[in-house]
Amino acid sequence: MGEALNGLKRTIMCGELREEHVDKTITVMGWVQRKRNLGGLLFIDLRDRTGILQVVFGEEINNDAFIKADSIKPEYCIAVTGNIVKRESVNENMPTGMVELKAESVKILSESETPPIYIKEDLDAAESIRLKYRYLDLRRPDMQSIFHIRHKAAKAIRDFLDKEGFLEVETPMLTKSTPEGARDYLVPSRNYPGMFYALPQSPQLFKQLLMVSGFDRYFQIVKCFRDEDLRANRQPEFTQVDLEMSFVEAEDVMTINERLVSYVFNEVLGVEVKTPFKRLPYKEAMEKYGSDKPDLRFGMEINDISSVVEGIDFKVFKDALDNGGSVRTICVKGGASMGRKDIDRLGEFVKTYKAKGLAWIALKEEEIKSPIAKFLKEDEMNGIIKTVGAEVGDLVLIVADKNSVVFQSLGALRLELAKKLELLKDNKEFNFLWVTEFPLVEYNEEEDRYQAAHHPFTCPMDEDIPYLESEPGRVRAKAYDMVLNGEELGGGSIRIHDSKLQEKMFNVLGFTSESAWERFGFLLEAFKFGPPPHGGLAFGFDRMVMFLSGTDNIKDVIAFPKNQNAFCPMTEAPNVVDTKQLQELGISVREKEDN
Amino acid sequence: MGEALNGLKRTIMCGELREEHVDKTITVMGWVQRKRNLGGLLFIDLRDRTGILQVVFGEEINNDAFIKADSIKPEYCIAVTGNIVKRESVNENMPTGMVELKAESVKILSESETPPIYIKEDLDAAESIRLKYRYLDLRRPDMQSIFHIRHKAAKAIRDFLDKEGFLEVETPMLTKSTPEGARDYLVPSRNYPGMFYALPQSPQLFKQLLMVSGFDRYFQIVKCFRDEDLRANRQPEFTQVDLEMSFVEAEDVMTINERLVSYVFNEVLGVEVKTPFKRLPYKEAMEKYGSDKPDLRFGMEINDISSVVEGIDFKVFKDALDNGGSVRTICVKGGASMGRKDIDRLGEFVKTYKAKGLAWIALKEEEIKSPIAKFLKEDEMNGIIKTVGAEVGDLVLIVADKNSVVFQSLGALRLELAKKLELLKDNKEFNFLWVTEFPLVEYNEEEDRYQAAHHPFTCPMDEDIPYLESEPGRVRAKAYDMVLNGEELGGGSIRIHDSKLQEKMFNVLGFTSESAWERFGFLLEAFKFGPPPHGGLAFGFDRMVMFLSGTDNIKDVIAFPKNQNAFCPMTEAPNVVDTKQLQELGISVREKEDN
Repeated sequence: MGEALNGLKRTIMCGELREEHVDKTITVMGWVQRKRNLGGLLFIDLRDRTGILQVVFGEEINNDAFIKADSIKPEYCIAVTGNIVKRESVNENMPTGMVELKAESVKILSESETPPIYIKEDLDAAESIRLKYRYLDLRRPDMQSIFHIRHKAAKAIRDFLDKEGFLEVETPMLTKSTPEGARDYLVPSRNYPGMFYALPQSPQLFKQLLMVSGFDRYFQIVKCFRDEDLRANRQPEFTQVDLEMSFVEAEDVMTINERLVSYVFNEVLGVEVKTPFKRLPYKEAMEKYGSDKPDLRFGMEINDISSVVEGIDFKVFKDALDNGGSVRTICVKGGASMGRKDIDRLGEFVKTYKAKGLAWIALKEEEIKSPIAKFLKEDEMNGIIKTVGAEVGDLVLIVADKNSVVFQSLGALRLELAKKLELLKDNKEFNFLWVTEFPLVEYNEEEDRYQAAHHPFTCPMDEDIPYLESEPGRVRAKAYDMVLNGEELGGGSIRIHDSKLQEKMFNVLGFTSESAWERFGFLLEAFKFGPPPHGGLAFGFDRMVMFLSGTDNIKDVIAFPKNQNAFCPMTEAPNVVDTKQLQELGISVREKEDN
Repeated sequence: MGEALNGLKRTIMCGELREEHVDKTITVMGWVQRKRNLGGLLFIDLRDRTGILQVVFGEEINNDAFIKADSIKPEYCIAVTGNIVKRESVNENMPTGMVELKAESVKILSESETPPIYIKEDLDAAESIRLKYRYLDLRRPDMQSIFHIRHKAAKAIRDFLDKEGFLEVETPMLTKSTPEGARDYLVPSRNYPGMFYALPQSPQLFKQLLMVSGFDRYFQIVKCFRDEDLRANRQPEFTQVDLEMSFVEAEDVMTINERLVSYVFNEVLGVEVKTPFKRLPYKEAMEKYGSDKPDLRFGMEINDISSVVEGIDFKVFKDALDNGGSVRTICVKGGASMGRKDIDRLGEFVKTYKAKGLAWIALKEEEIKSPIAKFLKEDEMNGIIKTVGAEVGDLVLIVADKNSVVFQSLGALRLELAKKLELLKDNKEFNFLWVTEFPLVEYNEEEDRYQAAHHPFTCPMDEDIPYLESEPGRVRAKAYDMVLNGEELGGGSIRIHDSKLQEKMFNVLGFTSESAWERFGFLLEAFKFGPPPHGGLAFGFDRMVMFLSGTDNIKDVIAFPKNQNAFCPMTEAPNVVDTKQLQELGISVREKEDN
């Protein structure tokens, strides 16, 4: 059994020791990073969350401590008391490298078996092992640092919003299932057998009700849940920075949120993020970058050459244009030197985005090479080159198809090329922008109906309201996404605060008045009592922390994440439960053949 | 449909306006508290979350606005622009009562039906109506004020703990069912049909693992869940301030937490709470106050008169003493004047706590009255009076039984008398104390086994460890409760950090090694790798807010609470779900006859 503290107090943390502490008697507590026995002297690197301190034990310093230290192994938890002295051989790689602790006494607080993973940075261990022994994985300094950042970010968000008059109000976790959007996690009710709560996918309805209540400015850093098949960087439970404001329009919400993000990045990283952010309407984002979350750290914009090529006799282009599609390009600076195989690979790449193929024009020093050259007259070829602004040495890549395919494939191709050409290597920039004027609804071909692009409470743009029933597809929403380096960091909208408009919206989405009331009746009811104009936004907090800590794996920013099957290898949740528990809930597990 | 803001900006909040704003042009937005039409003048009290401002519309001020205002009804949401002027008749009951707004223009942002409850303080409406229209209930200024307090308290807690080096780390909501203690809420898994997650009753195991990870100081303000039959002031989901520290002993945890609470009460209420708090061992608390959470705002301590009466020939006393029980009293100052009927009622009262009856001695001016006088010799009577320190005019109340009954009934009687005698009327004191040295285990007579008094990870006191297996009942724990005015505000302990001691503890609690590993294996496994000494505490945050806001109803401090049946009258959760949802989860609802 380990020794008890018995009144012994830690006086300072390992990583804090500097030359100014020389000759002071201190007590530190932590874990043994490594031990070296040099005969009469024994060195231990002692680690706590602040860093590492070298501790030296010696026969001549204190023989009892020296003998005891000999039994110590890596990851033992110990307390050491002694004097800080200047080191003979300074270690400039450690902040504490000027000094060491001469150990007068040591307590072994607990022993350790050999850990199944190394406690070190940049660990290259299997994810399954890291998750099973998560408490050891979290001992690693790079993981510790991420959770410091996460804490700091949450603190900065709260400090900022508190100063701006936002109140943090907790909304329920046990609420009603409204399965529009993703799948709900359900919680069986014991008091009402056969009935279920749902865990919230977001506090959307509650925050709108808080606006009806006159809270004026609400926020919450809150867990949300989605029972989805996990793609990379999705977790069944995730954390959202959720906020809502009354008596505002879209610009007001955007302004305060860019100030918020700028404050957070400055507090946590010391980075100056300039405001206001660029505003880019959805239509322009799609046309220029083929994406509603474009990465603006590099150019390579998409150009429309439809009008240049509309006369030519090349079936692929012709079909695309005849069917209402377009012919668009991106121009790769210096790409003319790319080999045929590489270009073919890009062709394969765009096919995964449903493009039928990739035409190209390489402006080599000596000639213009292009498989479609034979279809083009000289002035047509020159027209293309002029439109895209290509110069000698460049490669023009062309997709012709219906617009959705053109945008998606060229948008993806643009990112793929940036990766391939290492355009963003060593790029430390945080490039923020707002994408605005999103479509209000999108057509779901499978279900043959319109569905909300954002959610059914999003307000249409005033000038588009006349088309809401006649041409829903052309109606733009008062919605905005904050995009950072090509990722959506947050999104929100001005909400409908008028029952009649809200009912019209439900109508467009194919809800009967009855089914709308069944699901959202309490919101529609609330809107009868003087709801204020309001709008808000929600950030993916996990993603924000990923940016702040420079990791691209969401599991790194969640202390105890689930694996891809929504399973926790450490606790082994989910798991079987007692039959009695199920009986009390009035549910039973179906036999396989029932399914 | 309501009018749009269309660029109109609020310039100030209603409650902020003072004489200094006279002659300024402002725009306010809010809800109509009331309207009075005095012919050519029309007054509206406009309310937002900061307070109320009087707005005056007049034919002579702006006739268009005046005409429009005439259609306005209570709870309409409006925006008004105009000039601030000094009021002719000052209203000293309102902070804005020196001024009023002369309305030049008004927008009706949305209309309101007549609300089903009054939007006013001290509402006396049925709870069911308040919960169904919670968004209107929350408009009431006293409810608004509670959520301001709640926000401030959470902010103060985070500010304090951040400064003290605590990191807020989020622990999972979807975790493993470990049904020791209360009943878990379960969440069926879709990926693993027949398996379930549980919602956490507390982050206990995770916070201990974070200590194993070296996080050193953790906290979280976090939702916890218990599927219990709801007593008053219990909710299925509640919020806990949860914290844990490494390399500490009980005193360290208590010291930082009394500083925390003192900081919060000062920040939120401006109240100075003196530290350190009184420390009272459990045994003394029971003997003096008959409670492990005594209210020390008044005296009326319990006295043991067993040794004084041990010779007397009164069966009730004799039986109690012969069976290892005791005879104890409380002395009611000035209580001798209490009528016989009142005393009888107290006798009935203690019977609800299993006492067989209540003996009494009234020290009247002229005589000593007592139904047990005939059993007592004069020196015995004097001995009792002396022991309890009774004086002429006092009433001595006596219970004889086994100790648990004596303590419980006299403890309850003490509180009942304080209420009856209005000892705490107008008492604004916050009387904090620590109750310490709790029993480690308690005997569960039904199940014929010991169970953890706190939880199975609580560390026994060093000096009592030798009795852990031989006499578990006498072992005290390194556990401490923070008590405020007779209510438990928080509780915690130093944890066992030694696998062997932990396994011994499970043994005492009747777990087989196998069942302990099945439930808590990941913690026992973690303890193999150098766990630090650690301990912590959890506060009931809802209860803390109740104290801070002076309400005795937990539903007042939760924005969207459930009723006594864990049902939300507003959203109507829990509710039925689609069969498809259940199919995907591999569960079915049992027919009634199956149960």
